Amino acid sequence: MAKELKELTNREENYSQWYNDLVVKAGLAENSAVRGCRVIKPYGYAIWEKMQRALDQMFKDTGHENAYFPLFIPKSFFSKEAHHVEGFAKECAVVTHYRLKNDPEGKGVVVDPDAKLEEELIVRPTSETIIWNTYKNWIQSYRDLPILCNQWANVVRWEMRTRLFLRTAEFLWQEGHTAHATREEAIEEAERMIRVYADFAENWMGVPVIVGHKSPNERFAGAEDTLTIEALMQDGKALQSGTSHFLGQNFAKAFDVQFTNREGKLDYVWATSWGVSTRLMGALIMAHSDNNGLVLPPRLAPIQVVMIPIYKGEQELAEVTAKLSAIAAELKKRGISVKLDARDNVRSGFKFAEYELKGVPVRLAMGPRDLAGGTIEIARRDTLTKEVVPQEGLADRIEGLLDEIQANIYNKALKFREGMMTPVDTYDEFKRVLDEKGGFVLAHWDGTPETEERIKEETKATIRCIPVDAPDEEGVCIYSGKPSQRRVIFARSY
Amino acid sequence: MAKELKELTNREENYSQWYNDLVVKAGLAENSAVRGCRVIKPYGYAIWEKMQRALDQMFKDTGHENAYFPLFIPKSFFSKEAHHVEGFAKECAVVTHYRLKNDPEGKGVVVDPDAKLEEELIVRPTSETIIWNTYKNWIQSYRDLPILCNQWANVVRWEMRTRLFLRTAEFLWQEGHTAHATREEAIEEAERMIRVYADFAENWMGVPVIVGHKSPNERFAGAEDTLTIEALMQDGKALQSGTSHFLGQNFAKAFDVQFTNREGKLDYVWATSWGVSTRLMGALIMAHSDNNGLVLPPRLAPIQVVMIPIYKGEQELAEVTAKLSAIAAELKKRGISVKLDARDNVRSGFKFAEYELKGVPVRLAMGPRDLAGGTIEIARRDTLTKEVVPQEGLADRIEGLLDEIQANIYNKALKFREGMMTPVDTYDEFKRVLDEKGGFVLAHWDGTPETEERIKEETKATIRCIPVDAPDEEGVCIYSGKPSQRRVIFARSY
Repeated sequence: MAKELKELTNREENYSQWYNDLVVKAGLAENSAVRGCRVIKPYGYAIWEKMQRALDQMFKDTGHENAYFPLFIPKSFFSKEAHHVEGFAKECAVVTHYRLKNDPEGKGVVVDPDAKLEEELIVRPTSETIIWNTYKNWIQSYRDLPILCNQWANVVRWEMRTRLFLRTAEFLWQEGHTAHATREEAIEEAERMIRVYADFAENWMGVPVIVGHKSPNERFAGAEDTLTIEALMQDGKALQSGTSHFLGQNFAKAFDVQFTNREGKLDYVWATSWGVSTRLMGALIMAHSDNNGLVLPPRLAPIQVVMIPIYKGEQELAEVTAKLSAIAAELKKRGISVKLDARDNVRSGFKFAEYELKGVPVRLAMGPRDLAGGTIEIARRDTLTKEVVPQEGLADRIEGLLDEIQANIYNKALKFREGMMTPVDTYDEFKRVLDEKGGFVLAHWDGTPETEERIKEETKATIRCIPVDAPDEEGVCIYSGKPSQRRVIFARSY
Repeated sequence: MAKELKELTNREENYSQWYNDLVVKAGLAENSAVRGCRVIKPYGYAIWEKMQRALDQMFKDTGHENAYFPLFIPKSFFSKEAHHVEGFAKECAVVTHYRLKNDPEGKGVVVDPDAKLEEELIVRPTSETIIWNTYKNWIQSYRDLPILCNQWANVVRWEMRTRLFLRTAEFLWQEGHTAHATREEAIEEAERMIRVYADFAENWMGVPVIVGHKSPNERFAGAEDTLTIEALMQDGKALQSGTSHFLGQNFAKAFDVQFTNREGKLDYVWATSWGVSTRLMGALIMAHSDNNGLVLPPRLAPIQVVMIPIYKGEQELAEVTAKLSAIAAELKKRGISVKLDARDNVRSGFKFAEYELKGVPVRLAMGPRDLAGGTIEIARRDTLTKEVVPQEGLADRIEGLLDEIQANIYNKALKFREGMMTPVDTYDEFKRVLDEKGGFVLAHWDGTPETEERIKEETKATIRCIPVDAPDEEGVCIYSGKPSQRRVIFARSY
């Protein structure tokens, strides 16, 4: 077995270390020389690119266009929206100077004190402020609305404790920023986009999610309502995977963005913003992978099928490889991404382990006996099963198999998630479930920030969301005993 | 005629103002609240996306993978390569702090003096240093080579005088960074990539370019050789449009990146880097556009065909639009991007002017008489000609027309460029051509940096490149009279 695999920490022993090992050893990402910043390696970036392509098409299909706004935001912009400044203008990278000069003492370069900026610039932690300052010039009348912009960008939040993909100082994301003539239209947009995210998570990533509203405590700074998709990881902790905010008229008021409405009256513009980030990479990895490595859903796998020749000597290698090449060409014609690994300097056992580690959904192996008998071995990464099948009809079979694996990965995660949804009616039960089982705990809550805050302090669990489809149900708050109209979802989370 | 068009400055009167007007009025980009940073608006970004898609595919077809490296670079990294520090560690954005706090005097937020970084971070002006610091951990043996990485990213250079797309503090680009086991392989890679850029410029942008080597004065800081593609704008000035650098072992030595070669000996790794940026947007605009607005080559046009109904009253609008919709569907099936503009609140004359301004290659107009007679009007943006043709066979005709326009735009630019290549043999003639005609001036040069420097001081012309296909030709330097083996290309430039 490959050296890398031997060193993969066991998931059941140390989930956190298993995750970190996996990210590094599968070649997805690694830490860099800059604290809190990471390098996304080619294999990891290839998955992110597939995510981007799919999401970008979904955004365009719902009428959005891409644009690009500045990396830097003047410091004063953050003070304009009262809640936003509390949430975002704190832990961030501040540019104070614009020039270096040679050290007079000959030790490299130093900051030139004469090149101090009049006003400091903040590296964007999110772009509402600079974008609404721009929209001010784009909007005069209801005819200029809606504006449906998205931006693919890097952002920086100076996190003190970082984890690859889940929480890093710099990360990649997209942020949609839309402007509307009416409150109703903006709310509809925020709801549309959280549904797009849920669709992507479930149908591309194979990760089931719960769509709901954040409690006021957990809302985006400056939002009137935050919608979220919440996913469950295999260790029973929740991961917030995407959010969509109804911003009301808060940013329009902060940046004085008014328009003439259909009735000819001046009004402030209504706004939404919504985003997902490279954090989705963390969700993807943690939701499906196992002790052999990554398990990737076929729709996001950079390599969907890997082919490995089994042989002794150059003659056999050449013959088997020729046949595999022909099959590869046929699969590629159908839009399947195939890698034929005919390296002669590593054993096939090493290759098997390597592609398991990298989560390639389907592995084909062929030896001289297969060549003679017209057969081939197919192995599935998700179930770790294999079978020998005829080469005849292989392309159809693989196309079907990729769909089957995509569905199986989702269904497995869904079944796990459903087993981890536990309704509780007392605070003792609540704490016991959190400690012994984890997962989503469905409990009544009195709706106050104070209760939520105390539960968080005492148990480290937060309200992940108030599900949009939560049925009405009379009950009493597990903490305060006050009346409640529906259960909300609590969990410990990343 | 549309109000916007009336306000477009005449190209012949003030080229620079014409360019700026065009960028803003065609909705490509605009200045932002942050000095030197611009907003790329949706229409401009749509062109950039098309460029990215095409280039990205070309990079992948030549074996490259994408990755992502940190935005921030520790200050000390710049001092490690002696030439690089001179070229890049000067005018740049410096992050010195990582936190803001509420102003004790209640005036918004201020930089928290307690949150000063131990070592300042530079917002990347280019990424050789952080990438070679990373490659150190990726490379042990010749088996780990080559590494063929590309990154799509934003970079910041604190330019004092900025112009939309051509020179801005923050800009978007791609930077390829490759690592090789031999000098020859690295040189081959640098040459391959400048050819990819030339291919892209000519076949996608319709901009003819000259491929050549930069003189030592104009080389990238840290390179042993810089290859460039040089384009000519309609005002006779040159625009450096892409560069590819052979970096020798300079960065490997600076960051101590050694590998065991095939002979089992330790050696430093050989490097290249290469990049093109949103500057290409400036080249695209300036090379083809006219006093009516943008002229876009069909392969990069976000809208290739616009359809405008000509009508009186709702009944006619409905009938014409129904027919146009059917035609649009047929064109879309062939992969042509079509926009049907059936807005009822602006006149068709306004629409005509608007899409001319936006450079849409083909305009289709249809009125009730066309509907009855089975005809349609086709107008070409490049030649500003129009004709009425049968609807029968329209899709074929348009497919052919888009190819014809693509070729015509290139050929027109090529013809212009060829008329602007002027060989001169004396310094007086050199200065006269620069002042009276502009363009590329082919002259003998003695090969010394001193002569190049003096010519630049006296005439503002620089050596754009030493063309790779420059024929051997004995001559004497126009400035010093010393012997020369070939003509080089001088020009004033952006």
